[in-house]
Amino acid sequence: MPKISQKGASMQSSPIRKLVPFSDAAKARGIHVYHLNIGQPDIETPKGARDAVRNADIPVIAYSHSAGNLSYRKKLVEYYHSVGIEVTTDEIIVTTGGSEGLLFAFNSCMDQGDEIIIPEPFYANYNAFASMCGVVVKPIISTIEDGFALPSIEDFEKVITPKTKAIMICNPNNPTGYLYSKEEILKLGEIAKKHDLFLFADEVYREFCYDGVKHFSVMELTDIADNVVLLDSVSKRYSACGVRVGAFITHNKEVYDTAMKMAQARLSPPSYGQILGEAAVDTPKEYFESVNKEYVARRNTIVNGVNAIPGCFVPMPKGAFYCVARLPIDDSDRFCRWLLEEFSYNGATVMFAPATGFYSKKGQGVNEVRISYCLNVSDLEKAVECLREALKVYPGRTN
Amino acid sequence: MPKISQKGASMQSSPIRKLVPFSDAAKARGIHVYHLNIGQPDIETPKGARDAVRNADIPVIAYSHSAGNLSYRKKLVEYYHSVGIEVTTDEIIVTTGGSEGLLFAFNSCMDQGDEIIIPEPFYANYNAFASMCGVVVKPIISTIEDGFALPSIEDFEKVITPKTKAIMICNPNNPTGYLYSKEEILKLGEIAKKHDLFLFADEVYREFCYDGVKHFSVMELTDIADNVVLLDSVSKRYSACGVRVGAFITHNKEVYDTAMKMAQARLSPPSYGQILGEAAVDTPKEYFESVNKEYVARRNTIVNGVNAIPGCFVPMPKGAFYCVARLPIDDSDRFCRWLLEEFSYNGATVMFAPATGFYSKKGQGVNEVRISYCLNVSDLEKAVECLREALKVYPGRTN
Repeated sequence: MPKISQKGASMQSSPIRKLVPFSDAAKARGIHVYHLNIGQPDIETPKGARDAVRNADIPVIAYSHSAGNLSYRKKLVEYYHSVGIEVTTDEIIVTTGGSEGLLFAFNSCMDQGDEIIIPEPFYANYNAFASMCGVVVKPIISTIEDGFALPSIEDFEKVITPKTKAIMICNPNNPTGYLYSKEEILKLGEIAKKHDLFLFADEVYREFCYDGVKHFSVMELTDIADNVVLLDSVSKRYSACGVRVGAFITHNKEVYDTAMKMAQARLSPPSYGQILGEAAVDTPKEYFESVNKEYVARRNTIVNGVNAIPGCFVPMPKGAFYCVARLPIDDSDRFCRWLLEEFSYNGATVMFAPATGFYSKKGQGVNEVRISYCLNVSDLEKAVECLREALKVYPGRTN
Repeated sequence: MPKISQKGASMQSSPIRKLVPFSDAAKARGIHVYHLNIGQPDIETPKGARDAVRNADIPVIAYSHSAGNLSYRKKLVEYYHSVGIEVTTDEIIVTTGGSEGLLFAFNSCMDQGDEIIIPEPFYANYNAFASMCGVVVKPIISTIEDGFALPSIEDFEKVITPKTKAIMICNPNNPTGYLYSKEEILKLGEIAKKHDLFLFADEVYREFCYDGVKHFSVMELTDIADNVVLLDSVSKRYSACGVRVGAFITHNKEVYDTAMKMAQARLSPPSYGQILGEAAVDTPKEYFESVNKEYVARRNTIVNGVNAIPGCFVPMPKGAFYCVARLPIDDSDRFCRWLLEEFSYNGATVMFAPATGFYSKKGQGVNEVRISYCLNVSDLEKAVECLREALKVYPGRTN
């Protein structure tokens, strides 16, 4: 029997999904599981966007243009303009989710052994894509004490080597919910310029910024336009994760043309998703206002609720719908599994993603979990109760 | 400005799409272009399948299971059983088109520098995926004189090195239309077994077998079940290229689990496409009978028509909807471009894919074009007329 690849063997399972079998087992035991482990919003996809798919009558579901339908790219230009990002249809490749954009960015800009700096904790799936592309992730720590703010320029420069090709951020951040300020993005731009690095930014949570703070995009760094690649997705913006439609955007023509060769190789992004995405651009402003109001209520429920539990600490995030909480526990993998296998309170338990999966080194994040607040406030209150009660009896409690 | 990757720079543009700008220019000059360059069927997607999408009323278009909806995988088990392939829901990963299955197969089984043997001419996009995964393609020639039959065991063994990890075939073949016989597949199985190699088979044209010949799948090689990975797609089967739904199938649990880590990293395949794919399994047999009858008529129009032109030769293919024709020309890239830029007959011209793009070495395929016969018989007749007239006046004619 032939051997699998080394890169495949060394790839970690997703920290978001690896506990799913235990969750299934809990449900089989009749215990309700509050899913705070995954960023699957329960918010309705805008009806107008869904109706566009239902009303489309296309006799042949054909390949689209490899960069995506021109009509959709035109609408995207409109959308980006509305959020202060100036881009043309020839600078956008519609991708199959944000994930495919990552593959295009990594493969267009980096070769086997090249290095990319990512502040950690970071979205665990970046590791899988780096591994698939032969790219080496060089993490630098952002700390819970600083609320997961951008590490210092010195921290970046300490890990820059001749092999460093890029810096990657997620803004607002998954898993921390941290929203990088304009000053921090400008600082990143300076580092990228000084060391001639690409700057990749995953901005799929752009719409989810709270407390009146405005999102500042890497695309606004006009003096290093050729260094910047924006990765985007409609998944979270319109609560349409299943359509698998994202975007790869750059002003750098050489990078764009290279990514287009890959886009042509995979022929086209999904047709139905593009129809939905195109119609979704016309989603009324009120949709986002009510969604954001709801998320702020959810965030406050989780953050205030968890901070009120003795021994727990969560910084107040300004974006996305995640936070990373420090808990008085010995081992977050063990704790999260124990919650599903052995614990229940009022017939329910809660599922988190162990934060260990969002760090590179063993031992990091052992007393942290990522909490996704995609459930309604009432369920989140019950989930917080579960956590409070669980921490009273968890055998691995540390203080 | 930072440099793009070497792998990106060395990647070739798709031979199917690189002439598109010239085709657009021809249309702008008011000349009709018969598109024999691309495998985009004009056949209607089955109505029942399209209606399933139109009738679906899903408030939240959520991520599906990373391996695809269980209900869809169950239907796929039914479908595969109906074509003589025995597989379970735990051996199927629903992919984003056949393309993503290739990425999963290459990355699960091969590391940087590992080699894969592919009989050429082969589907040009395999090169792009190999390049993205750091895999080296070792081509072995199948010749037009032999009708593009499988090369001999000796030819395979000549290029096997300690770095060889896999053999890949496309059956029925794109670009040649060649349908490998049961004997040839058994021979491939022997080579794979003897040298402990993976055997990847792209069988997306399985339904398109003509003249009463039955398709024999690599999945029927039960004695080397652990070596085999099947790559499939609904694109051609149901004329639904735009839904981007395929499948990665293997009995090898280790390979499956590895591919699942990648599938989890990209979260899920497209939701709407899965709905269409699930309903499409119930497409009545008559649909395929009438489609096949139509393709046989188209094939005969092209093959007989081209063979009747002095100096031209096409072997009669038994599958898919492509053939590779040898023409009396100096340079197929030049000829195909000339057809779009300078030639017209009765206000029309014809677009082919130069066969050079389906071979590895410079100089191969210079007098061959790939012809896709996805148009109706009347258009194909006119396209053949265009070719006949074009060859009378093409300045680079060789005999």
